Amino acid sequence: MSHYGPRLTRLIDALRRLPGVGPKSAQRMAFHLLDRDREGAAFLAGSLSAALAGIERCSRCRMFSEDGRCLYCTEARTGSGQICVVETPADLIAIESNTGYRGRYFLLMGRLSPLDGIGPEQLGLDHLAAQLAEGGVRELIIATNPSVEGEATAYYLTEMARARGVKATRIAHGVPMGGELEYVDAGTLAHALSGRTPA
Amino acid sequence: MSHYGPRLTRLIDALRRLPGVGPKSAQRMAFHLLDRDREGAAFLAGSLSAALAGIERCSRCRMFSEDGRCLYCTEARTGSGQICVVETPADLIAIESNTGYRGRYFLLMGRLSPLDGIGPEQLGLDHLAAQLAEGGVRELIIATNPSVEGEATAYYLTEMARARGVKATRIAHGVPMGGELEYVDAGTLAHALSGRTPA
Repeated sequence: MSHYGPRLTRLIDALRRLPGVGPKSAQRMAFHLLDRDREGAAFLAGSLSAALAGIERCSRCRMFSEDGRCLYCTEARTGSGQICVVETPADLIAIESNTGYRGRYFLLMGRLSPLDGIGPEQLGLDHLAAQLAEGGVRELIIATNPSVEGEATAYYLTEMARARGVKATRIAHGVPMGGELEYVDAGTLAHALSGRTPA
Repeated sequence: MSHYGPRLTRLIDALRRLPGVGPKSAQRMAFHLLDRDREGAAFLAGSLSAALAGIERCSRCRMFSEDGRCLYCTEARTGSGQICVVETPADLIAIESNTGYRGRYFLLMGRLSPLDGIGPEQLGLDHLAAQLAEGGVRELIIATNPSVEGEATAYYLTEMARARGVKATRIAHGVPMGGELEYVDAGTLAHALSGRTPA
């Protein structure tokens, strides 16, 4: 990399900090921006600065909020008495875009993983516990991913809700819509059968 | 995407202008920067601004040059009397890093492709012609890629050099080092045989 000048080297290093971008991609991106899309580069620089200046974490749901207002902690949503717990902002958006759910959320920004040093504090579960203790919440919907850590997190959340007298529910896991039993993996099928509901 | 606030939406849109980045990757990058690497986001914004402010195109070789100085148009390189023509900055760096060549370069930033509206002017071939006419150049090394357009470009460059009494050479195409004849494609093998050199 030493064949580039300092500014280009620095740009390539900066682009490498994006997730999933290696040295070759970073070089391609830098050349593209400098050669064909200088306007796009200026737009990106401005957008990054604007995002850093104006995007915070909401102190209640931990989702990104802009200019001090959170889209997901409005009064109307609080009135529903439901909190849906998700792992990532993308999960929140997936639920918000594809379902009719319009209650509040709580974003873990991860999942319990003691080996990686991620315990309840790192996930902000003390904040969630405080919100449950406040009252006004009648259902905690647990929408963590069905992975080992996600299930452990769900178990922890269930216990937490139970200790505070709040009903905890878990989103259903089973055969996906349009899927065929023959091709569904064993774990999913076992889950679908054990979790059967009255028809 | 309308579920995000305006600043986050703008950041995701800006990241999508990077080559090879679609909506999902852009979202992942934005979340990563905002959630885990705000310092990296600031570094990227600063590097982009610094690059836009200080990186220009060298008027002789068309490579990116910083603060008015071109690393590849020094007096020592001009003295070699050689100009190596390449398609992209990455090609230039590949030759510079992996070979002992230390002459000048000329960057096409593309290849002749009349259907896409890319003719000799778009590649700056009038500048190259002027440099050949100036004198002092004894060899034009043509290192375009062995694609259809690359070959057409090489042919055009050869004719251009011949018209100005400059020797034109083409980098060798054949079986790659470490390759096995059995697995080399037919075109490469035919090229290797017809381009055989005295042993």
